[in-house]
Amino acid sequence: MRIGILGAGQLGQMLALAGYPLGNRFVFFDTSGSPSADIGRTFNANEDGSALQAFLQEVDLVTYEFEHLPVELVRQVAALKPLYPSVEAIRVCQNRAEEKALFDRLNIPVAPYRLVASAEELAEACRELMQQGAAAVVAKSITEGYDGKGQAVLRDASDAQAAWQAIGHERLVVEAFVDFVREVSMIAVRGQKGDVVFYPMAENHHSEGILRYSLAPMPDLAAEVQRQAEGYIHALLDALEYVGVLTLELFQTADGRLVANEMAPRVHNSGHWTQNGAVTSQFENHLRAIQGLPLGDTRALAPTCMVNIIGQSAPAEVLLALPEAHLHLYGKEERPGRKLGHLNLVAADTASLLKNVEQASQKLPDAPAPKFSFVV
Amino acid sequence: MRIGILGAGQLGQMLALAGYPLGNRFVFFDTSGSPSADIGRTFNANEDGSALQAFLQEVDLVTYEFEHLPVELVRQVAALKPLYPSVEAIRVCQNRAEEKALFDRLNIPVAPYRLVASAEELAEACRELMQQGAAAVVAKSITEGYDGKGQAVLRDASDAQAAWQAIGHERLVVEAFVDFVREVSMIAVRGQKGDVVFYPMAENHHSEGILRYSLAPMPDLAAEVQRQAEGYIHALLDALEYVGVLTLELFQTADGRLVANEMAPRVHNSGHWTQNGAVTSQFENHLRAIQGLPLGDTRALAPTCMVNIIGQSAPAEVLLALPEAHLHLYGKEERPGRKLGHLNLVAADTASLLKNVEQASQKLPDAPAPKFSFVV
Repeated sequence: MRIGILGAGQLGQMLALAGYPLGNRFVFFDTSGSPSADIGRTFNANEDGSALQAFLQEVDLVTYEFEHLPVELVRQVAALKPLYPSVEAIRVCQNRAEEKALFDRLNIPVAPYRLVASAEELAEACRELMQQGAAAVVAKSITEGYDGKGQAVLRDASDAQAAWQAIGHERLVVEAFVDFVREVSMIAVRGQKGDVVFYPMAENHHSEGILRYSLAPMPDLAAEVQRQAEGYIHALLDALEYVGVLTLELFQTADGRLVANEMAPRVHNSGHWTQNGAVTSQFENHLRAIQGLPLGDTRALAPTCMVNIIGQSAPAEVLLALPEAHLHLYGKEERPGRKLGHLNLVAADTASLLKNVEQASQKLPDAPAPKFSFVV
Repeated sequence: MRIGILGAGQLGQMLALAGYPLGNRFVFFDTSGSPSADIGRTFNANEDGSALQAFLQEVDLVTYEFEHLPVELVRQVAALKPLYPSVEAIRVCQNRAEEKALFDRLNIPVAPYRLVASAEELAEACRELMQQGAAAVVAKSITEGYDGKGQAVLRDASDAQAAWQAIGHERLVVEAFVDFVREVSMIAVRGQKGDVVFYPMAENHHSEGILRYSLAPMPDLAAEVQRQAEGYIHALLDALEYVGVLTLELFQTADGRLVANEMAPRVHNSGHWTQNGAVTSQFENHLRAIQGLPLGDTRALAPTCMVNIIGQSAPAEVLLALPEAHLHLYGKEERPGRKLGHLNLVAADTASLLKNVEQASQKLPDAPAPKFSFVV
């Protein structure tokens, strides 16, 4: 099976590495101008569409590693080749207004929010949400959100004019700030026949809008909270007639409640721990799903923490000397804020794992000190 | 680091898949005429040596996945680029007479043997070894043995003429047949500074000269037998100033003794179980060793059995539906006797594992019924 991937970054590369053993071969279609997958031919998008046509001739099946693609492009692809997840999944996931509407329709709890189309409406929404008790609000562009870009936090309605200009989009969603204890993510996979498997949720530690650590399984996660998140994502998967890996990011509040933040219709950085910490990785399960193969076991093997390598790495000999460290470099040049790779650390118990994560963070330039919500 | 691999088959492909996450990229040099690695550029050997020169210009470091290479070729490579394991390791491992002499020198027990250069000498050696108690003898060509090719079993000195002609080599080694309980293999890795790690031994089940099943760890393996094998391979690694993965195949007799059979200076089919059953795979550890990186943990995670897919496969959806099954296809066309891929089955305990292996064998066309020496 020749699989075409829209996008040509590290997620595409890791999909290909997981797919070779399944007998798959890969080609990539890049719209970013900086492809890095480097494992199979890459077609670079061009004006007249001939690169897209050439790409499509090389593939039996198309998936994507990046959802901020023109819907029109994705429709063109789907008209010619099987595409998973569907155009509808991309359309909804790349539009925060659509996404919120779907969450609402499926009774998935979200923070109170408003849609606004001017600085004045933004100020008004900010006032309203803060009157209802929000300590602050977060304004986000409706489209093209990625890694904290196109977002602003407002602590007062008087911040509205500046925030509006900083974001520079025509429509925003304004959300009450959630007073959360931790950020978590639920990753699930739906097969072509509607079969669904769920990974144990991960706790995610962001810094400056970039994911730095993901740890799973969480030692203090109540079984009913895991089941609740599974219920939410199952509803989303079914509503979208989804095939492949879907990621749902949520907040957990002090009283244990889950509040959905956003979803990503693809393999996700917070699921990289599954490469070494679960029976079947998210990458392999995505490929199994889109090819109509049986889904693999999602059980965690041992406590695992993914540590992102951002901007600058440490020498491989230093990182590989850490206990049970699995290195995943993407082959990219160092550049501030760039995701260059990650380390998966595995340990027999969470306490040992946290010690090793602490050690890893000290080896990596500019890594923030790891902080998790639980005590072990 | 750009790594050149001499040989371009499935071992090279699996090395490359393990090396991408370490930041390595790969090119291949094929002397077989049927390269299948398909993950990076392959240079096909040609008469004037220009392909070899072009290959060498693309790489920082060279290793091999196939040891039956002309020593002259390997010397040429080593003169221009760092090569691991060394020319000496290849030279010894591709010559059964050299190999036996090294085993003897290091006091590693082998079956009684003779070197012969004619049908008459073969008959005489057969008579002698059988007089000393051998039930039969095995004659093997000195060079180019692979997967049971170039071998013959003699049950009587009168078989000598036919055996000599069938093998068709100028020099043979003739070994007393070992009355073994099981075939086992020890895989170890030596780093550039002489650091060594050992995998738990595997029990191997061959059929018609081809490996069909490898299971590790063996539930009934005495710790002192593992240590004894570690001692043997450690002596070999040090004597050869070896860097990388070395495989030692042994017989175990009814009284628990180990008798060395042969060694392979490379990652080995009987070590494929480490991809899913050990903390660090043999492929990754070979790459770590040859790059001077710290060696990874070789601990087994759970009982694991590698099941080779030979000649003809079953549909992926059937194989992936087996419990905790990891599929590794090499992307090769079906052909009788050809290694097309393998399945790694992992289970919580050996009894469950054996049930799953039994199930797998029933799904695979022409797979022999799995037989292991132990009872669980």
